[in-house]
Amino acid sequence: MSDNRVKNQGKENAMKKTFLDKFASKMRSFPRQVWLTIWKVGREDPRRFIHALKVGLSLTLVSLLYLMEPLFEGIGSNAIWAVMTVVVVLEFTVGATICKGLNRGLGTLCAGSLAFFIEYVANESGKIFRAVFIGTTVFLIGTAATYTRFFPKIKKNYDYGVVIFLLTFNLITVSSYRVHNVLRVAHERFYTIAIGCGICLLMSFFVFPNWSGEELHGSTVYKLESLARSIEACVSEYFQDEETVVEDNPSEDPIYKSYKAVLDSKSMDEILALHASWEPRHSRHCYRYPWQEYVKFGTVLRHFGYTAVALHGCLHSEIQTPKSIRALFKKPSIRVAGEVSKVLTELADSIRNRRRCSSGLLSDNLHLALQDLNNTIKSQPRLFLGSNHNQATNMLALAAAAAANQKQEKESGVSLSSVKTDSSALLEWKTRRMTDQSKENERKVLRPTLSKLAITSLEFSEALPFAAFASLLLEMAVRLDLVIEQVEELGRMAHFKEFKSEIEIIVSRENAQTGQRRQLPPNLPFQNIE
Amino acid sequence: MSDNRVKNQGKENAMKKTFLDKFASKMRSFPRQVWLTIWKVGREDPRRFIHALKVGLSLTLVSLLYLMEPLFEGIGSNAIWAVMTVVVVLEFTVGATICKGLNRGLGTLCAGSLAFFIEYVANESGKIFRAVFIGTTVFLIGTAATYTRFFPKIKKNYDYGVVIFLLTFNLITVSSYRVHNVLRVAHERFYTIAIGCGICLLMSFFVFPNWSGEELHGSTVYKLESLARSIEACVSEYFQDEETVVEDNPSEDPIYKSYKAVLDSKSMDEILALHASWEPRHSRHCYRYPWQEYVKFGTVLRHFGYTAVALHGCLHSEIQTPKSIRALFKKPSIRVAGEVSKVLTELADSIRNRRRCSSGLLSDNLHLALQDLNNTIKSQPRLFLGSNHNQATNMLALAAAAAANQKQEKESGVSLSSVKTDSSALLEWKTRRMTDQSKENERKVLRPTLSKLAITSLEFSEALPFAAFASLLLEMAVRLDLVIEQVEELGRMAHFKEFKSEIEIIVSRENAQTGQRRQLPPNLPFQNIE
Repeated sequence: MSDNRVKNQGKENAMKKTFLDKFASKMRSFPRQVWLTIWKVGREDPRRFIHALKVGLSLTLVSLLYLMEPLFEGIGSNAIWAVMTVVVVLEFTVGATICKGLNRGLGTLCAGSLAFFIEYVANESGKIFRAVFIGTTVFLIGTAATYTRFFPKIKKNYDYGVVIFLLTFNLITVSSYRVHNVLRVAHERFYTIAIGCGICLLMSFFVFPNWSGEELHGSTVYKLESLARSIEACVSEYFQDEETVVEDNPSEDPIYKSYKAVLDSKSMDEILALHASWEPRHSRHCYRYPWQEYVKFGTVLRHFGYTAVALHGCLHSEIQTPKSIRALFKKPSIRVAGEVSKVLTELADSIRNRRRCSSGLLSDNLHLALQDLNNTIKSQPRLFLGSNHNQATNMLALAAAAAANQKQEKESGVSLSSVKTDSSALLEWKTRRMTDQSKENERKVLRPTLSKLAITSLEFSEALPFAAFASLLLEMAVRLDLVIEQVEELGRMAHFKEFKSEIEIIVSRENAQTGQRRQLPPNLPFQNIE
Repeated sequence: MSDNRVKNQGKENAMKKTFLDKFASKMRSFPRQVWLTIWKVGREDPRRFIHALKVGLSLTLVSLLYLMEPLFEGIGSNAIWAVMTVVVVLEFTVGATICKGLNRGLGTLCAGSLAFFIEYVANESGKIFRAVFIGTTVFLIGTAATYTRFFPKIKKNYDYGVVIFLLTFNLITVSSYRVHNVLRVAHERFYTIAIGCGICLLMSFFVFPNWSGEELHGSTVYKLESLARSIEACVSEYFQDEETVVEDNPSEDPIYKSYKAVLDSKSMDEILALHASWEPRHSRHCYRYPWQEYVKFGTVLRHFGYTAVALHGCLHSEIQTPKSIRALFKKPSIRVAGEVSKVLTELADSIRNRRRCSSGLLSDNLHLALQDLNNTIKSQPRLFLGSNHNQATNMLALAAAAAANQKQEKESGVSLSSVKTDSSALLEWKTRRMTDQSKENERKVLRPTLSKLAITSLEFSEALPFAAFASLLLEMAVRLDLVIEQVEELGRMAHFKEFKSEIEIIVSRENAQTGQRRQLPPNLPFQNIE
């Protein structure tokens, strides 16, 4: 008994010790962790560091209003509102700063006017009535303003403005009960806020400005490029000879990472477009730059991306067409994927340089590649037979012959056994997963399902998965058209430069590359207004 | 010449008039529009109206601090901070309110302590040195705090706290230059903010509380159900006999709408889970309720949803398998889809009632349905031949025979001509679109591409699209397993009730239905701790 107790105590001590050890080692590594985070955040986007410096500088500037004698005498203790304004208004991009600043200004102005009106009415009456009147007004305006925050239009553009309206209104109305020069309070609050907003705008406009519009433009180009990469990688992985390692964590997959950027872009795009629409930068040609078109384009691209996801699904699908059969279609499929990805890259380039693309030139090669794939599929009519066993040998013989033609005698041996390899590998993988998970959770009733499904699946026609793959590739080529169309539309709405011949493009691209990366070549005067 | 001028003036006047008319009619319809918006926003979610009333009430309550004589004497003019706190902290859900309130409190506390320390150092020195010292501190702290806002962890949980920290710090430090009882300022600011936060918490906890957790739970159930609906609708639309109308606006499509809720749920889920993790509601069993599991489940469900999108893509694909061939596989395919959708609905029910599901029972029927589809595909081996013309007749004859068996003589005529109908309909549709668009933009170089692609596509094996459809259906059934697995995991982590037999479920479901919709049955003490 006492032996047990000693043992338990020993265990407890050991646990305490390991806990302390862990804590100590965590504490020791903490400064390193912090430093790594600081470094990583800054390296990912050096503009963040500049933005932080800008905020520090603006705060110091606005503090001078309070710290320096002559300035303070002019403005008084309300200078503190200017400091508060800088803290909340100065945002990362110009558009966001303008949006917040305007909201704050407008909210304060509206609230000030309304509060003044209420004060005027309340002033005529006795003290108790005034208190009741103010209380009621606060309740009514508070309820109404909060309710309007749920309106989709107001929520999108003026949410912050309504908050500031409510804040200022309550501030002035409630304090008007005891302080009597409310008009002065409202007035001072308004112009100190104006000073704060002014400093914020100056800072974000003229000191290393970050434009939401540029960000949106850049992210659109980036999304096109990463889609192009992921499609090419996906198809070449489908046809590669080595067995692909099925990763348990799909988020580590580079293909997944590439198209994920496209799929998850919705809210970011919308915010950027909203802020970009406040930026005055592209109005010099007297037309509103169509930022909403970028959002629409994002939607089309996301829809295109879903096909890429389905194609990627073919890679990790539970039933697979044997490698030997796939090998027959390797060349034409890779060619189609290459052409699709080339078109996407070309579109990305065209958006980056703000010039129109020539869709005719773009799709010629794609057309040829599709024709090629079509011919290859037609030349193997027996492949799409069901897996009745008498026919399966036929199919395998064909595959083996093709493989032998392409490489050596040895290769054909591999392809003959690959049907077995594929299906047994799948079962093996399943068994491995089963044992892995059974350790953790013995009474999981799930596993039988999976294996049952797998057995059913294996009886399906073995060419079916490849048919799906080819069909998705085709679907992708057709949907690409919608993407091209939307880029065309974007180019038209945003008055991109006319399409130029190959040589001119190369020259302009070289120019762009020698210039700063984030700086875009100045818009040429556009030649056609439609 | 003068005639022209008169004409132009007439035109201008007419334009002005129509503009004014338009403006006037817009103005007339404005109140109606506003009223409609108010009505719609309230009807979509009546809790919005209640929330607005809650804010109004809280503001009135907190204003009493300032309006009522005895309370005011205790607290003083700093009561205004309490009003401001209520405006910014009281959010729609309990979790969001707690999160903001805690951030505000913590930010103020940290800033107050730091400011007090700085003030202590600065106090020792001369006036000019003090100004310089304060300016430098403001700059350094401003820069550092803004930079930390880019750290992923801080951005996610404490962004608002850092803003408040900066606000309070600057407020106290800067005003310490002129006001000398800074400690009192900091102290008063802190406890008025505490009062404000207290009122907000009371309001959101005890007056018609909206829990982020419930919202997340409900939206998860809703997503499962809408996926189930969309899959069933999608497959039955694929096999329906009438020609489907291709809608130009995909966002009007009910199938699209159903799965869109799943695809776009990422940011909403993450915010809800974040806020739910602050809510203390589910901690009575002394375990952290695994809200992050809901986010993970959302990811799995979105991945499952991509297959639904690809399946939906088959409906609007540019090349289609003739209806007559599709008809051969109608029954088993619809059965598989029905089973998939039944499993999803069952999972939704299990999450709604917080009980575990029995995956064994769930997948038995699905297994049978898959077997059925498999047998049907195997019984039609000639269908998956390429579209070499000698074989095409074979394929059609088969289809016609099958159709004749099922229905009348008349039907087979339809199916014989359906290949032609399908392809010609596609071309017709393309031509229509071309003429529509050519009006708007004559020199669009795009159209040739589309038609070229379509011609290429039509030569592909005509069974290919159906093969893709079947393969996607299969893929979906397999991926469903991952969804079931994740629900199982969720049930385990969240200690859902054990699975009960059919009768008990019906009883408990009836009980749940008689209870309030949003109120959940109390958690039974769990029997197994794993």
